[in-house]
Amino acid sequence: MGQTKKQGLIADTQSESDHRHLEIDQVGVKKIRYPLQLLVADQVQATVGLWSLAVGLPAIQKGTHMSRLIGWLDGLKGPIDSSLLSEKFKQMLTLLGASQGQVAVTFPFFLRKRAPVSLVESNLDYEAGWTIKGTQARVEIWAFIQVAVKSLCPCSKEISSYGAHNQRSHVRLNVELLNPVPWPELVRFAEDSASSEIWPLLKRADEKWITEHAYENPKFVEDLVRDVALRLNADRRVGRYEIEVENFESIHNHSAYARIERL
Amino acid sequence: MGQTKKQGLIADTQSESDHRHLEIDQVGVKKIRYPLQLLVADQVQATVGLWSLAVGLPAIQKGTHMSRLIGWLDGLKGPIDSSLLSEKFKQMLTLLGASQGQVAVTFPFFLRKRAPVSLVESNLDYEAGWTIKGTQARVEIWAFIQVAVKSLCPCSKEISSYGAHNQRSHVRLNVELLNPVPWPELVRFAEDSASSEIWPLLKRADEKWITEHAYENPKFVEDLVRDVALRLNADRRVGRYEIEVENFESIHNHSAYARIERL
Amino acid sequence: MGQTKKQGLIADTQSESDHRHLEIDQVGVKKIRYPLQLLVADQVQATVGLWSLAVGLPAIQKGTHMSRLIGWLDGLKGPIDSSLLSEKFKQMLTLLGASQGQVAVTFPFFLRKRAPVSLVESNLDYEAGWTIKGTQARVEIWAFIQVAVKSLCPCSKEISSYGAHNQRSHVRLNVELLNPVPWPELVRFAEDSASSEIWPLLKRADEKWITEHAYENPKFVEDLVRDVALRLNADRRVGRYEIEVENFESIHNHSAYARIERL
Amino acid sequence: MGQTKKQGLIADTQSESDHRHLEIDQVGVKKIRYPLQLLVADQVQATVGLWSLAVGLPAIQKGTHMSRLIGWLDGLKGPIDSSLLSEKFKQMLTLLGASQGQVAVTFPFFLRKRAPVSLVESNLDYEAGWTIKGTQARVEIWAFIQVAVKSLCPCSKEISSYGAHNQRSHVRLNVELLNPVPWPELVRFAEDSASSEIWPLLKRADEKWITEHAYENPKFVEDLVRDVALRLNADRRVGRYEIEVENFESIHNHSAYARIERL
Repeated sequence: MGQTKKQGLIADTQSESDHRHLEIDQVGVKKIRYPLQLLVADQVQATVGLWSLAVGLPAIQKGTHMSRLIGWLDGLKGPIDSSLLSEKFKQMLTLLGASQGQVAVTFPFFLRKRAPVSLVESNLDYEAGWTIKGTQARVEIWAFIQVAVKSLCPCSKEISSYGAHNQRSHVRLNVELLNPVPWPELVRFAEDSASSEIWPLLKRADEKWITEHAYENPKFVEDLVRDVALRLNADRRVGRYEIEVENFESIHNHSAYARIERL
Repeated sequence: MGQTKKQGLIADTQSESDHRHLEIDQVGVKKIRYPLQLLVADQVQATVGLWSLAVGLPAIQKGTHMSRLIGWLDGLKGPIDSSLLSEKFKQMLTLLGASQGQVAVTFPFFLRKRAPVSLVESNLDYEAGWTIKGTQARVEIWAFIQVAVKSLCPCSKEISSYGAHNQRSHVRLNVELLNPVPWPELVRFAEDSASSEIWPLLKRADEKWITEHAYENPKFVEDLVRDVALRLNADRRVGRYEIEVENFESIHNHSAYARIERL
Repeated sequence: MGQTKKQGLIADTQSESDHRHLEIDQVGVKKIRYPLQLLVADQVQATVGLWSLAVGLPAIQKGTHMSRLIGWLDGLKGPIDSSLLSEKFKQMLTLLGASQGQVAVTFPFFLRKRAPVSLVESNLDYEAGWTIKGTQARVEIWAFIQVAVKSLCPCSKEISSYGAHNQRSHVRLNVELLNPVPWPELVRFAEDSASSEIWPLLKRADEKWITEHAYENPKFVEDLVRDVALRLNADRRVGRYEIEVENFESIHNHSAYARIERL
Repeated sequence: MGQTKKQGLIADTQSESDHRHLEIDQVGVKKIRYPLQLLVADQVQATVGLWSLAVGLPAIQKGTHMSRLIGWLDGLKGPIDSSLLSEKFKQMLTLLGASQGQVAVTFPFFLRKRAPVSLVESNLDYEAGWTIKGTQARVEIWAFIQVAVKSLCPCSKEISSYGAHNQRSHVRLNVELLNPVPWPELVRFAEDSASSEIWPLLKRADEKWITEHAYENPKFVEDLVRDVALRLNADRRVGRYEIEVENFESIHNHSAYARIERL
């Protein structure tokens, strides 16, 4: 302290050198909410992102300049897709003077869905996000999506004289994009693999349809994760991936869970 | 500052007088976790409580002495039930010199359950709690419990050629105890009102039973909340109450919800 | 079952009569996310709402028609403020044939803020919402807002030779609007009462300012809640209210908490 | 269906063969709460665990037998430490006929702490857990702990005429145990690296001590993560590790974050 304060100059503590000889893998800001313009099916959708922004810090440097990360985030104007975000990511590395870094964001978005029989329309919400990481020379882009669906238990159907237990399930995909995959296609990987997809607005004719359709398509959590994997395996735009399915079992107070990864 | 610091004495800022002429309804501590010895069905069960402790503050007083609240909490030795806690509550008021206050705690506990056909045993978890509030002269005791059950939709069963959508539901009771009601009885109010109760450990014969049993007992969220209300209305130990039922609908990504209160 | 299914007609189970003689206070849907166009400071801000929609159900009726609630929500086009929402609320009651009901929604929104010294701009997020309840004849409108601020402990400052513990705090207002109060004004009630307001983007000169400013304005959780109450008491647009302040204490792993209500 | 149901026999759908040629990395149960007897500093502490239990599934098998996982969990009697749990883990693999698997559990526990000046005692909570994974031949044991501490900003102290912003921080360690490390020692890695450790119960003399002590030990999030890393690097019982520090910044509504991993 002392001198600096007395003269009214403002010291730059972060830029001092460090003597612990320890690189930091990631340093930055976390859990910052910011408005986000998203491109979904060629339309701009305004939503709210929850961001983490981090860079690597060389062993010799005491601290990073976190306010620059917020400045970079504030500069993200206009609709964003994964390609644009990976371009901006490189600018973030330059701005921070960092050799590597990571940007992660999650946000809800909506698709307009039509009920299967009545055709009434409503908006279903999906939780989604991107992780962008790497260096100026090599950037990885991963897309995340969580899709709520319906699963109906094949064992319960098989052994019971009538009925079958069923429940809401979450399918979570985290896929490396070798080429862009539109959000509605990522959604279909999950919805087409379930006992049934779901809708916010259903009339009675639709409720009959979804009840019977799910009964005709029983799926274990194991079936669901495998059917999603088959679809991802057949798509050349997809690189590495993680698939998780979680059934909020209606006969238990815990979840059934399955995971396939190709890493 | 000045004098106090120089002399090394420690000022008592909270005890100063306040000039805003505003009583505070509740002031204290929140979200403090502490070990808890609970009496469940005459057995001591060790669990972890999440506590809020608050007292009223007269207009003339600047602040309360929060450390005394923690001291009181630390002194809660031995197994606790609602009667003991309301005795201790009065001691808390005395300790803080407060005319009124409120203690709220939530905690998980377990009941040993036997599957309906195989009779295999396992522990089902319940989220529960107490709210104790009032004055030295008059103390109210409320018990809270959240019970996970299964609900099966009567409409879906009625209109569909086969199957019926069903899901996990939460029944939440918050009841004023005029006389003590053991936890297992509070649980039964909820479990007996559902399409079926649930278990952590089920063999295939049990799964068949629960599937068919739920199909034979379809319940709307409205049925569930009414059937719980009927049971509470018939019990003289219960004073005022709030009942909430939330179905995590398996055909939607939102909940169906119903609430009856007697306040 | 039987006849209905065989003929392919679709029964209306919800419309059947009920024999338990129990009114239901609230029945509807909960935790549904939907896009929301919000008016903030005369500008439209797109965000995401988390909704609960419920109506009262007479003792004689078996169930409500939940799909109509979603239909009503889907019909909320264009920018919404509290006056418009209370008009729409009456239409919801009509649509459901209900004598009373309740709509609650929470959502994040952003204000553009300028740092105190450098004047750099960034967006700060606030969690907000409305509760609309009542009948065709009488509608109550409540506005909710949670504002993150900085609090610095007067006792710690007074008794310590240097420094003072400080922390992030949440000020939560839930106010009945007798007349509309713009969001930025609700924010000011909270920010002006704190040791300091906060910003996402701060340069070093701003960090010096906020550190010193908070040190010059120490506030107990009791001071904060009282200073907000004074401001609300002086505002004729505000009816009943609840104020909560929670300090995420930096010297503890629990919160300090205070609450004043005028109900 | 058909035959099985008519004869009242109960089919074993999970044991059927699968034709998708896809191994599943993990299949099992998640988010199951169960009572847990924990060994902390040679004393048994009763707490509540939140468990995930999973095994790998060969490509040829349709489903796993999830009820056996719950049966295994129910059989975990008596106090558990990491060594015992890894023995039990091998029995789980045998029970499921699995070549590999993973058990993860988190739970709160408490340490009795004495305030720095007054020496009053109280219990501080820590969130902790284990991950056990591998095969019969090779089992990895990881211990997780989250420790709440106080951090004070060196830059804010340096540039300000008085005061310095400070806040609660979370230090999260996830370490591979080559040899057992007692919980209190894992806690010390974090608490000794912070601007100050924290306590539930502090008298005014303690509050003065912690305020001044933190002011004398300013730490960036970068300093904290590095100081923990230095301690882990010096301990031969620790294999691979991940260290995360998150500061709940009192001048922002977001967190500062740093991470060092040795994987």
